[in-house]
Formats: sequence, structure tokens, C-alpha cells
Amino acid sequence: MPRKVASFSNETIKRIRALEQKKHRRAEGRFMAEGLRIVTEALDAGHVPEAVVFAEDMAGHALVRRIVAACEAAAGDAIEVPREILARITGKDNPQAVVGVFAMAATPLAELDRNSAAIWTVCQSLKDPGNLGTILRTNDAVGAGGLILLDDSCDPWSVEAVRASMGALFTQAIVQTRWTDFIGWLRAGPGLLVGTSLLTDSDYQSVHYVAPTFVLMGNEQHGLPPDYAAACDMLVKIPMCGRADSLNVAISCAVMLYEVLNQQRR
Amino acid sequence: MPRKVASFSNETIKRIRALEQKKHRRAEGRFMAEGLRIVTEALDAGHVPEAVVFAEDMAGHALVRRIVAACEAAAGDAIEVPREILARITGKDNPQAVVGVFAMAATPLAELDRNSAAIWTVCQSLKDPGNLGTILRTNDAVGAGGLILLDDSCDPWSVEAVRASMGALFTQAIVQTRWTDFIGWLRAGPGLLVGTSLLTDSDYQSVHYVAPTFVLMGNEQHGLPPDYAAACDMLVKIPMCGRADSLNVAISCAVMLYEVLNQQRR
Repeated sequence: MPRKVASFSNETIKRIRALEQKKHRRAEGRFMAEGLRIVTEALDAGHVPEAVVFAEDMAGHALVRRIVAACEAAAGDAIEVPREILARITGKDNPQAVVGVFAMAATPLAELDRNSAAIWTVCQSLKDPGNLGTILRTNDAVGAGGLILLDDSCDPWSVEAVRASMGALFTQAIVQTRWTDFIGWLRAGPGLLVGTSLLTDSDYQSVHYVAPTFVLMGNEQHGLPPDYAAACDMLVKIPMCGRADSLNVAISCAVMLYEVLNQQRR
Repeated sequence: MPRKVASFSNETIKRIRALEQKKHRRAEGRFMAEGLRIVTEALDAGHVPEAVVFAEDMAGHALVRRIVAACEAAAGDAIEVPREILARITGKDNPQAVVGVFAMAATPLAELDRNSAAIWTVCQSLKDPGNLGTILRTNDAVGAGGLILLDDSCDPWSVEAVRASMGALFTQAIVQTRWTDFIGWLRAGPGLLVGTSLLTDSDYQSVHYVAPTFVLMGNEQHGLPPDYAAACDMLVKIPMCGRADSLNVAISCAVMLYEVLNQQRR
């Protein structure tokens, strides 16, 4: 049976709310995911929340009951609260009905099975958590295996990244590593590393993307560092016909990922 | 010569700051664009700011001088301020060096020249200004003519939309209209209306997109209303191989726009 909590000063509620901050996520090894849809996606992908907080007015909802049952079956903590407490946890006036607390599950680079998927995304110093979440969502759509975050990228377990991922966070392997480690690992096995660049004439559709393809995206502001670009097997260019010379990084990534998918599904 | 203002209570500064709110933008018919890059893009596209506020420490910067000169040549108001005032105007601790104030320039549907471009984007009840700006940026990249916003879409002149557009706002026609007016106008001339849907088997790459193509995107949460989908010349499906059944709207839009562009540039 879920326990009922009606006080903001409850210790568990305070600890969950603190997961909004990176230092607390890191200390606890846990993060928050909001919303029935995302928490249900998590369950479907085999991730059971260690704790779940749900709105008392939604206690009878079938999906809430399913989430609570799964959480309790795994000896997790299911907590029924008034909406005001959910509003406080999520910092929103109109909070979602459910907040799940999950273990952060980064994949060590050495454990990544590159042959388990034909497409992988690699991002260097990605700064915007909305872009990160959106890239995860696109990754899921093209059947990619995961996202490799290089250098000082933003936190994939932030509330904003989790929200933008729409649950894809739970279907994708997430690796956090540095460039030298990544390139060493990559060259120890099969893998085509493709970067996007304005400084090449190779059209992104003129290249044959053999599996596994690793699509490398540079930082939002600065693009790829020259030495990273130089280490790619190929650099390709997405055509741009307008005044601007760049796309949003999540958009460039999607255009690349769909080209790779389209070639592979032919 | 630019005038110097050092007081938060200056009337002009207060009016510019108020443009953060939609009601003030509407009342004044003007909006704010932040940043050297975006304001320079505006100039390059032929949009001269009616007013420009710039940081005193950047007065000697070549791009700032160019913007100030253009503004003053058009009898605009150029104002030099301390960074603290820019911080107050933009609500940011680290403000951009320049804020330009521009006339809002919506294009009436009746004045849109559909044959001036091969690609157009049409969005129904688009809610997120970041998505809107990102779609404008992608539109610019594929050489689209503009963005037609249907029904109760968010404001394309909000600070967030302008920022996400990275200046593409100034290169794209923007129309705000309702569905019945749009479909009446569309059917009075050439134009292929294509919607994306999960309920069709037509792959988005199996269709020939004749110019002008109008790519219709539904609302972030609900997708296209059934009657809008029924009015399309064709519905197409972007393949999805993952657990999720949807993409971010700006991502779907980009995948569609690049397919149309790729066909047209072959």
C-alpha cells in the first residue's frame, strides 16, 4: 500500500525535490522523471522507479496503479500526496500526476556493445539540456543504440533533458567520457566516424554510411574542434540555401541520423 | 551620435524592456532582438532597427558601429548604456552587447507570393516558442519562403522565439491566420499540402514533392486535427524504429523539409 504524505517538510519529499540539482543527483545516484507518459515509457523499457510520488486524485488511474504496483513489487517507496506537494517538487503550478525517481545508469565506454546498433550519436560539449533530450528522442526514433557525451557536456539526467527526451532516456545507452578515451575505444574496433562541417564539399547524401556509424556533433556555438574533425573518417556537409550558415544542433543531428537510417533501410 | 543613458528609470529603456511582454509588443507593433549576430542578420536581410541599445564597452566594435550607423541613418534611436541596463532589459546576468528594436512585420495571407519559394511550412497551434524559432531557422536553411501559423500558435516575436530563430525571423515571411482562411487561399492556386501522420502507410520518401510544397505540422501534443489531415493532398509517415511513436515537432519538420529540398535539388 502506498503511504500518504501531506507535509512539505517530510524528509523523503525534501530529498526528492533536491534531485532538481545536479550535486544532489550525483550524491544520491538518482534522478527525477515527471509525467505518466515518461514513467510508463521507463517501465516499458525495464526501468522500475525506486520511488514514485503521485497525486491523490489520480490514485485510481490505471497507469498510476501499474506504476505503483511495479515500484512496490521491487521494494520501492510509493507515496500518495496532494497536488500541492507535486507542484513543490516539480516547481510547476500545474504539475504532472506522477514523479518517478530512478537510478542513474551511465554505461561505461568499455561496456558499450557497438555492434548492438547500426547508429550511434556522439556529442562534444553539448550545452543545452533541451537539445540533449531532443537528440535522445530522435536517437530512439531511428533505432540508435545510444548517446556518447564527450568532454563537458550538460547533464543528461537534468529535469529539462529528461522531459525533452520524452522517455527516450530509458531506451538509449548513455556514455560520458572524454575525447581521447573515445577515439582510442573507437579505433579498437569497427565504426565509421562522421562529422558535419562547413569546410567540406562532401554532400551528406553522397556518402555510404556503413554500420556501425557514429555521427559526431560539435558544440552549439563553436562546432567541432579542428583536431576532432581531423580524426573523423569523413566530414560531410548538410546543404544550406539560406542566409544562415548553421542549424540547431538537434536539427543537424536529426537530418544526419535520418540519412543514415534511410540508407540502411533501403 | 548615440545618446547615453545610465538610468533604469529612463522612459525609453522602460518601454523597450516592456517588449518582453506580448501585450506591449502588440500595443507598440515592435519587438526585441538580442545579440550582435541576430541584429546583424537583420540588417543583412534589410531590416533596420528602429532603436538600438548597446553596451558602452562595445561602442568601438565594428559590428556595433555598423548597426548604430544604420539605425541613425534611418532616423532611429541609438542608445549607449552600461551593461547593467542591458542586463535589466534582457533579464540576464550576462546580457548580449546589443538589443535591437524592430517593427513586427506579419505578412497578410493575401499578399503571400506562393511561387516565390518551393517550400513553405504551415504549423497548427504551435505552442513552444523555442520550437517556432528552431523551425524558422531550418526554414531559412532549406530556402523556404516562410512560416504560416494557424489558429492559436505562440507569438513568433517573443524573445525566446527570436533567439531560437538565430535571425531567420528576418528572412522568412510570417503569416498568422486561421485554418479556413488558409485552406481557401491554398486551393485558389497551385500548392501541394502534405501532412505527417502515424495513420498512413505512405513513407515520406515515397512521395514526389512538387513545388510549391506546403508542409503541415500539427500541435506538439495532439498532432493534426482529423479534418485538417483529411484536407491534405497527402499524408506521409516518417519511419520510427524505436519505442516512441513521435518526434519533437521541430525535428519532424526538419526531416520533412530536408526530404523536400533533397528531391528538389536532385
